[in-house]
Amino acid sequence: MPTLILCRHGQSVWNAENLFTGWTDVDLSEQGVEEATTSGDRLKQEGIEIDVAFTSVLQRAIKTTYYLLERSDQLFVPVTKTWRLNERHYGGLQGLNKDAAREEFGEDQVHIWRRSYDIAPPEATAEQRELDLADRKYQGLDHRVIPTSESLKDTLGRVIPYWNDAIAPELLQDKTVLVSAHGNSLRALIKHIEGVSDEDIVGYEIKTGSPLIYELDDNLGFVSKHYL
Amino acid sequence: MPTLILCRHGQSVWNAENLFTGWTDVDLSEQGVEEATTSGDRLKQEGIEIDVAFTSVLQRAIKTTYYLLERSDQLFVPVTKTWRLNERHYGGLQGLNKDAAREEFGEDQVHIWRRSYDIAPPEATAEQRELDLADRKYQGLDHRVIPTSESLKDTLGRVIPYWNDAIAPELLQDKTVLVSAHGNSLRALIKHIEGVSDEDIVGYEIKTGSPLIYELDDNLGFVSKHYL
Repeated sequence: MPTLILCRHGQSVWNAENLFTGWTDVDLSEQGVEEATTSGDRLKQEGIEIDVAFTSVLQRAIKTTYYLLERSDQLFVPVTKTWRLNERHYGGLQGLNKDAAREEFGEDQVHIWRRSYDIAPPEATAEQRELDLADRKYQGLDHRVIPTSESLKDTLGRVIPYWNDAIAPELLQDKTVLVSAHGNSLRALIKHIEGVSDEDIVGYEIKTGSPLIYELDDNLGFVSKHYL
Repeated sequence: MPTLILCRHGQSVWNAENLFTGWTDVDLSEQGVEEATTSGDRLKQEGIEIDVAFTSVLQRAIKTTYYLLERSDQLFVPVTKTWRLNERHYGGLQGLNKDAAREEFGEDQVHIWRRSYDIAPPEATAEQRELDLADRKYQGLDHRVIPTSESLKDTLGRVIPYWNDAIAPELLQDKTVLVSAHGNSLRALIKHIEGVSDEDIVGYEIKTGSPLIYELDDNLGFVSKHYL
């Protein structure tokens, strides 16, 4: 039976400081490392054998993947890193404190940006945009696919093609697949797999650093899920 | 210009205890971690940008790769793990103390096994063989390619096809390629690249945890090399 393990990265230093992060490539906090290593130990205790892993190109997700595999003695598992699993791009909000943003733009507006399905935050500044385009992680990408800001709907638009082209084919071979990514790229997958409504997916909370294990049927339909 | 960076994994716990290791999947020692992280810091200081990395399926090489990329802020670099870059299979000697082996088999015989080009050590015991065949790292491989023991010549026989099929094509696109592997799989590459004789390659020493940087010409001919 195909098994999909979704893991949101452990707490990052910007999570801890309550900043909008998005594509900013911040490190895990100490607590984040602890979450990931503890979950790796649990994978080992439960004897969960991963066949293949996918993660984003952001270090907080890559490090989480590493700790999960390292602590469960599975470092040999192939890991593919892709920008398509990156966190939602938070545009002009990236780097802002969430409370400061509420003061600047109003609580209602910030709530809309954070919790609406199809409304994107303000676009990245020209300076931020330059940094994204110059970033070695995104070399080889057509600049038109590098977002300036994304709604959750936009995030689905770039995550689901990767699900179909890279992740689903592994699951269809009855493999156990780890996807170690971010709150919103994982919401995109969960919406797709479980058929969650636009209204409900925006409030769907995923624990950090804690593998969420999906059993799927032979056509990748949802059967059951539980946290490790 | 194509740049190839070869790095032998940092010291392992069995290196430290003077045991024959081969395909045994032992961890890095504390000194080994220190070697790899220090070299990662040096990569960052020198501004060396890696485009793609290859390593074995053994954790001491995978961890070395991780520390090199992590400390140089390049975790997003794609890493491919392959059994073809594994250490030479030391057959029946794996797990033996090198001094104990000299007592058991004689100093001359052990020297021949360690330092001849085409003489393989005794074959793995039936028990060791079972462990290799059952190892998840090697699932999907035809059992006939999993060695029971290897000479350095045998090691070249499985490393060089991978060079030609996977590593060389990246270099031919002028990329900077990291190969993080083992004493003998790296000797295989060095013999091939520099045209070292059978006699000389067996005594060729490579520092642990220390990147060896090759500049190559457009046809991947040897131009120069230096340690980072």
